[in-house]
Amino acid sequence: MRDFLPADKARRERVLAVIRERYRAHGFDEIETPVMEEYSRLHAGLGGDNEKLSFSILKRGMDAEGIRAAADDPAALADLGLRYDLTVPLARFYATNRAQLPTVFRAIQMAPVWRAERPQKGRYRQFMQCDIDIIGDASARAEAELMVASLDVLDTLGLEGGSIRVNDRRVLDAMLDAFGFAPDERPGVLITVDKLDKIGPSGVVAELRDREASGPAVDALDAYLDRPAATPSFDDAGIRAALPDGIPDEVIAHLVSLGETVAAARGADAPLVFDPFLVRGMGYYTGTIFELAHPSVDYSLGGGGRYDGMIGRFLGQQVPAVGFSIGFERIVDLLPDDGADGERSVVLVHDRDVPLDRLVALKSRLVADGARVRLEQRVKNMKALLERSAADGYTAFASVGTETTADSLELKPLS
Amino acid sequence: MRDFLPADKARRERVLAVIRERYRAHGFDEIETPVMEEYSRLHAGLGGDNEKLSFSILKRGMDAEGIRAAADDPAALADLGLRYDLTVPLARFYATNRAQLPTVFRAIQMAPVWRAERPQKGRYRQFMQCDIDIIGDASARAEAELMVASLDVLDTLGLEGGSIRVNDRRVLDAMLDAFGFAPDERPGVLITVDKLDKIGPSGVVAELRDREASGPAVDALDAYLDRPAATPSFDDAGIRAALPDGIPDEVIAHLVSLGETVAAARGADAPLVFDPFLVRGMGYYTGTIFELAHPSVDYSLGGGGRYDGMIGRFLGQQVPAVGFSIGFERIVDLLPDDGADGERSVVLVHDRDVPLDRLVALKSRLVADGARVRLEQRVKNMKALLERSAADGYTAFASVGTETTADSLELKPLS
Repeated sequence: MRDFLPADKARRERVLAVIRERYRAHGFDEIETPVMEEYSRLHAGLGGDNEKLSFSILKRGMDAEGIRAAADDPAALADLGLRYDLTVPLARFYATNRAQLPTVFRAIQMAPVWRAERPQKGRYRQFMQCDIDIIGDASARAEAELMVASLDVLDTLGLEGGSIRVNDRRVLDAMLDAFGFAPDERPGVLITVDKLDKIGPSGVVAELRDREASGPAVDALDAYLDRPAATPSFDDAGIRAALPDGIPDEVIAHLVSLGETVAAARGADAPLVFDPFLVRGMGYYTGTIFELAHPSVDYSLGGGGRYDGMIGRFLGQQVPAVGFSIGFERIVDLLPDDGADGERSVVLVHDRDVPLDRLVALKSRLVADGARVRLEQRVKNMKALLERSAADGYTAFASVGTETTADSLELKPLS
Repeated sequence: MRDFLPADKARRERVLAVIRERYRAHGFDEIETPVMEEYSRLHAGLGGDNEKLSFSILKRGMDAEGIRAAADDPAALADLGLRYDLTVPLARFYATNRAQLPTVFRAIQMAPVWRAERPQKGRYRQFMQCDIDIIGDASARAEAELMVASLDVLDTLGLEGGSIRVNDRRVLDAMLDAFGFAPDERPGVLITVDKLDKIGPSGVVAELRDREASGPAVDALDAYLDRPAATPSFDDAGIRAALPDGIPDEVIAHLVSLGETVAAARGADAPLVFDPFLVRGMGYYTGTIFELAHPSVDYSLGGGGRYDGMIGRFLGQQVPAVGFSIGFERIVDLLPDDGADGERSVVLVHDRDVPLDRLVALKSRLVADGARVRLEQRVKNMKALLERSAADGYTAFASVGTETTADSLELKPLS
C-alpha cells in the first residue's frame, strides 16, 4: 500500500477527472458502493482467484468462546470483507437499486479495491479501478459504447492511436470443440492458450502435450497456429477466414455488428483487431471479451467483456451485462509528469518579520484574482525551496519584505 | 453504509471538486494514505473513543491453533484496521515522508473513514471526511489560513455568511483553575460544560452538583454564567472582558493575532466569535479550537483545533500542527439539488428499429460537439422516462427514428 505525495496525488486526480468527464459525456453515470460487502457475497465463487486474496473484517465484539469455536471455521470470525473488484459490488448494487435506475444502466465506478497479494514490484494491495459497465443491453451497441468512450478517454489524455483486441468466449469454445478438445479439458487448455503471447505457438503446443491434452486436438491446433500470419480484417469475411468451420453464425454477426458500430461512431475504420486466441482470465465472461492496446506499450491498458450470467446470481432474473476496466494505474504511470497543468500559481517567499496579517492579506488578494498561492518563509537554501515548489506545480514566485504591497509585488517565473 | 445513486454521487463529486479547487488555491496540497493502518497505531490512544469503533482486518492465513491462542487476546487476530479519522494517518504520513515535504506543510485529505457505530438515523459506518491541516507553523497564521480557506469554500458553494466560534484549550484550563476546580476533576467538568448549548447554564450547574464537583468552584462558575449575555468583540479588550482574571497573556495574544489576520485576509471584520465555553471532544487538542457555523443551521459545519503533541508521538520530535475538518456530509445535505450543473446534456430517445451504427454515430457526433448524451429506447411511459432523465441532470431530449440524421435532429428542453 502506498502513500501518495502532493505531485503524485495531483496527477492521479487530473487523470481521474478526465476519465470521469469523458465517460459522463458518453452518457455513463457515476455511482459509489461501500468498500465493504458481506463476507458471504465476496466468497460466492464469482471473484475467481481474487476471492482468496480478499481482506476480511473481524466481527465486532467476539468473546473468547466465540473465537475458540471459530478455530475450526475461520469464516466465522468475519462478517464483512473489503471488495477485491468492482464487478461483484456492481451486481449487488444493481439488484438492490434496480427500480431507481434507467432500463439500460450505464455505470461508472472509480474506486479502490484491495487484494492481499504478496508484496512485489508493481503490485499493490490497494489500487484504483475505473470501470464502466452497461447493464440491460444484449446488443453489440453496448460493447461499442464502452469501446468508443474508452478510446475517447485515451485520446483526451494524449494517448491517441489506441486499438482494441477483440474475441468472444463462444468463439474459443467453438474453436476448441472444432479441434476436438473434450469439454472437461477445455478450461485447462484455455489457461495454456492464454500464454500464447508469452511462450509462442510452439510453447503452447509443448505445454498442451505435457498436460496430456488429447493428441489429435493438439495436432489440429498446431496446424491451425501454423497458418501464415495475417491480421484478419474486422468484417464478416475477415473474421470467418480467421476461424475454423463450426463457429455459430450469431457469434460472428455480433462481432461484425460491433465493428460496424464502432466504425460509424469514430467516422473512420474501427481500431479493432480480431484475435481468436484472446482468452482473459475471469471465469464469469460469457461472450465478447476485449483488451485495450496502445502502440507505446506491450501490455494492455484495460480489458473487459460480457458477463450475462452474473446479475442473475444476485437478482434472480437474467439481465445482460458488459463491462470494461480501464487500466488507471498503468495509464498514470505512462503519462508525462507535466506538473504545472496550466494554473496560475505563485509561491510568496517572505522575510521572517513580515506581519502575519499583511502576509495573509497579500495571499488572499492573489487567491481572489484566481491564483493558487503558497507561503514560504525565506531560507538559506533558496534553490532547493524553489525547485521543490516547481516540482509541486508552482509556476512563479515573488519576494515579500516588510515594505511589499500588492502593487509592488514582482512575480518571477519558476523554471 | 450507503450506496450512492447517480444524482447523489454527481452532487457529492461536484462538492468535492469545489472543496479541492478552493483549498488548492489557498496553497494546500492533496495527499492520500491507504485506508488501512497498522492495528497498533490505530490503538495507541490518539483516537479517543473512535478507537473502540474501529474495524479490524483479520490476519491472513490464521490456523486453528493461532485462532485458539487468540481467544484470550483478540487483538492477536488483527494486524491492520480501517482508519477512523484522517488525523492519525496524517501524523503517520508526515513522520514517514517529512523529507519530501515543504517546511510548512499544508495538507488536504478527502477520503472515507469507518466507524462501527450502532445503526441510527444520520449516522453512517462509512462517511467522507475532508480535512486540511498545517504542520510546522506555531503562529496564528496557520489557524487563519485554515479559516480563510474554509470560509472561501462555503462562499463558493453559495453558503455565504459563515462564521467561526473560537476558543483555546488553555483558556478552558485557566478558567477552570480560576474557578477553583482541582486538576483531576477538570476532564469530567469539561464533559458537562460541553453540553452548555443543549442543557443551558442551570443544567450545567445542576449536573456538576450531581457529579459532586467542588462546591465553591461550581458557585464561581454559576456566578460567571449568570453575567449579562453579550457577544464579546474579537479583540484584546473583548476577549479579556469575557474571561475571569488569570488567563495567560500569550493565549490571549494568539487569539488577537488570529482575529487580526483573518480580518486582514477578508478585507473586512473577521467573522469570528469568541466562545469561552466551546470545548470540542477530542483529547489531543492543545491550543486553539474552533467550529464553523452558518445561519441556516443550528449545528456546526466543521471544526478543528491545534494538536501540537501528536506529530511528536510518531516522529519523536515536537512539530506544531493545526487542522480543520469541513463537514462534507452535512454540507452536501444542505445544498439544493440543482441537478443540471450547466452542462449541455441530451437524451436521444430512439425507435427500436434504428440501426445500432446510425444511433451510436449520432451520439458520437453530439459528444464531439461537447454534449453529454444518453441513449434511451422509446417506451410506452415516456413521461416517466423524461422525468428520470431530468432528475439525472439531463436538460434536453430529441426523438430519433430511422430517418433522423444529425442535421434533422430536433432538441427540445426537458423541464
